[in-house]
Amino acid sequence: MGKMRRKGLASMAVQTVASATTVDLGPASGLSCRECGEVFALGPIFACELCFGPLEVAYDLPTGDPEALRKQIEAGPANIWRYAPLLPVPADVAEKPNLNPGWTKLVQADNLARELGVAPGKLFVKDDSGNPTHSFKDRVVAQAIEAARAFGFTTLSCSSTGNLAGAVGAAAARAGFRSCVFIPHDLEQGKVVMAGVYGGDLVAIEGNYDDVNRFCSELIGDPLGEGWGFVNVNLRPYYGEGSKTLAYEICEQLGWVIPDQLVIPIASGSQLTKIDKGLQELIKLGLVEDKPYKIFGAQAEGCSPVSAAFKAGHDVVRPQKPNTIAKSLAIGNPADGPYVLDIARRTGGAVEDVNDELVVEAIKLLAQTEGIFAETAGGVTVGVTKKLVEAGLIDPNLTTVVLNTGDGLKTLDAVADTSQATVTIRPSLDAFRDAGLAH
Amino acid sequence: MGKMRRKGLASMAVQTVASATTVDLGPASGLSCRECGEVFALGPIFACELCFGPLEVAYDLPTGDPEALRKQIEAGPANIWRYAPLLPVPADVAEKPNLNPGWTKLVQADNLARELGVAPGKLFVKDDSGNPTHSFKDRVVAQAIEAARAFGFTTLSCSSTGNLAGAVGAAAARAGFRSCVFIPHDLEQGKVVMAGVYGGDLVAIEGNYDDVNRFCSELIGDPLGEGWGFVNVNLRPYYGEGSKTLAYEICEQLGWVIPDQLVIPIASGSQLTKIDKGLQELIKLGLVEDKPYKIFGAQAEGCSPVSAAFKAGHDVVRPQKPNTIAKSLAIGNPADGPYVLDIARRTGGAVEDVNDELVVEAIKLLAQTEGIFAETAGGVTVGVTKKLVEAGLIDPNLTTVVLNTGDGLKTLDAVADTSQATVTIRPSLDAFRDAGLAH
Repeated sequence: MGKMRRKGLASMAVQTVASATTVDLGPASGLSCRECGEVFALGPIFACELCFGPLEVAYDLPTGDPEALRKQIEAGPANIWRYAPLLPVPADVAEKPNLNPGWTKLVQADNLARELGVAPGKLFVKDDSGNPTHSFKDRVVAQAIEAARAFGFTTLSCSSTGNLAGAVGAAAARAGFRSCVFIPHDLEQGKVVMAGVYGGDLVAIEGNYDDVNRFCSELIGDPLGEGWGFVNVNLRPYYGEGSKTLAYEICEQLGWVIPDQLVIPIASGSQLTKIDKGLQELIKLGLVEDKPYKIFGAQAEGCSPVSAAFKAGHDVVRPQKPNTIAKSLAIGNPADGPYVLDIARRTGGAVEDVNDELVVEAIKLLAQTEGIFAETAGGVTVGVTKKLVEAGLIDPNLTTVVLNTGDGLKTLDAVADTSQATVTIRPSLDAFRDAGLAH
Repeated sequence: MGKMRRKGLASMAVQTVASATTVDLGPASGLSCRECGEVFALGPIFACELCFGPLEVAYDLPTGDPEALRKQIEAGPANIWRYAPLLPVPADVAEKPNLNPGWTKLVQADNLARELGVAPGKLFVKDDSGNPTHSFKDRVVAQAIEAARAFGFTTLSCSSTGNLAGAVGAAAARAGFRSCVFIPHDLEQGKVVMAGVYGGDLVAIEGNYDDVNRFCSELIGDPLGEGWGFVNVNLRPYYGEGSKTLAYEICEQLGWVIPDQLVIPIASGSQLTKIDKGLQELIKLGLVEDKPYKIFGAQAEGCSPVSAAFKAGHDVVRPQKPNTIAKSLAIGNPADGPYVLDIARRTGGAVEDVNDELVVEAIKLLAQTEGIFAETAGGVTVGVTKKLVEAGLIDPNLTTVVLNTGDGLKTLDAVADTSQATVTIRPSLDAFRDAGLAH
């Protein structure tokens, strides 16, 4: 996964373009195996035929004047398609029906900085709750949609426990796809409604999330699932690239500068690895200055396989059985775990975890300082940031960007007990005076 | 409320600037009574001393080259502060801590258009669920915050049944105000949590929303409430101006063109009247061409006092006792009702209502065609649009903009019964085949 090897792959990938001439995914030139480097033509495949390693998109990225490219991006739409020249999408992507996520707020969080002991002007929250279905999943699904279009799929599918189901349902509806989403049968009512309102088929599976995933894997290999685009399986290489847009936006919003430190949540680990990939691309393209940056991964203690491996100095990740309120991060066997470990170590970062109590505290701290109501995953990143500043691993005088990847409205239960009315009174001034809330 | 009279007021207002020299609210020159035209200095007042009519902000708007102003706006931030020269805020407003709402998506809704029988490219949804706390209330609260700052208040307050409580709590937290929000004691749990998580005081009043409002009116007149900024009472003239930004954004997003037809929900009616005010300002400033437009008001049948008055040809609005799932629009005695009637009639529009069943259908129609999950208020506007197209009152060949002012996540109950899993099955291919969902 070193820089040298990736560069090698990119140039190899260019040679395979000819075999994929019917598929127009813009600068995407092929799929390369992250393990053995083998290159394949663009298609709905996700594992290397030779070594079963994960495939990722290789590019024939624009060369030439970085200033011209920067101007082109800045003149683009206020969504991820401003970066179309760097994504596996056709050049006219912005004209097709899509939810057009992205270009979410990068909030300068001076109040939170004060609480965490970070210098003023140095702490930022990238708030992806501003996306159409209020999570970063809209970014990745938007890419999967374009790949599905290119490959001629008409049904979009996924397994999900929440955010992804809503993102797929919504995007499929607008883009004109049928959707069929698989969920565990005991999902919370609110999440079922959020997934069901978009009108696609919603299949509840008698079993837990692992059972749902196993079933989906069977379905992909069966004629029953033929011609279906599973956004997080056979479209995964394209899907994953959506996370690069977080890196692009953060740098552009900072004035085309890479932040010194980034705190990123880890579920499968894909988001973190793609953000690193995005930063490397910006450097390669000359859009930002090459400079050191540290990437920190954040997990919940109740599902901390990568954090455990990092602390133990291991290269492999030992699966855990998740038990945490941060359900959107509760992947016990994260596919990209080893890559995350490599990036955290290579950049001088770390992987840390926080317990559920601190997750709740951190959600409230963010809400009460910046008015941002984050999902549990946002509580994890803010909580981990607090811990890393206290431990001296995050430098409070350097620029830090913390990701909030989802919306608190989706995980209300986490803070319900502790976010109640201060007092209940009769509608009288005397009762209000007695409550002691006037100043 | 005619154009002539408003122009007269604006020039009168300029003369009062001297008495408000200590208050810098940018182009705001004073407060004028919408009934008798009397002008007052800028301050935390909301009713005319002479006739008790409502006060609204008068401006000393920029004169000169419209092209220069348009360029200045286009170069501004991607939020409401791009319009700072047209709002009652200081010129450096974008540098102060605020939630910076606005610049939400204007979605070209071709799928919905097809379902409603509107020509392709002619129907748009202005989707305010993309605001920081996912409703248009962020726009109005952002204005109130700046007025509160100018008047030296340190506590922000309001009465609310949901959206406003969250918007005030969040904005106060970030902007450094204490907040004290009053809610009915029997509010749904989810809404209490959304209001409580931002850490301000949340006072539950034993009574219904009317009791809460009455209590707040008492509090404002009592020393206990002295120095408090009630966003929707003593800061109301400023607060209301936030809705003008919807007009500005819609026109700019259409390429500085006024849409032919707008469908706007009616609660108090303030939003509709301020959108009309905003459109008139754009014309006066030369930022858009002067052309006819029709404004349509949308209510739920269970709370349709303005619609009833419109249909009966009355100038006054007879209060109703609300009974509808569209709770954010459930104001039985809308303060701006008469002004709404005037605008709908003057522009050649109409006021229409839909029953709760159609509200639910319309929420699902919007979700299933465009991937936008709207609050019940959005179901009201989409449902009313459907009805008005069918009745021939909305021309399907002209441009129509429909407002969605809030997020479906906040009114999940409305669609819960009808947004369930299609089927529940064992995790087996046979079971899936039997379900008949494969193609």
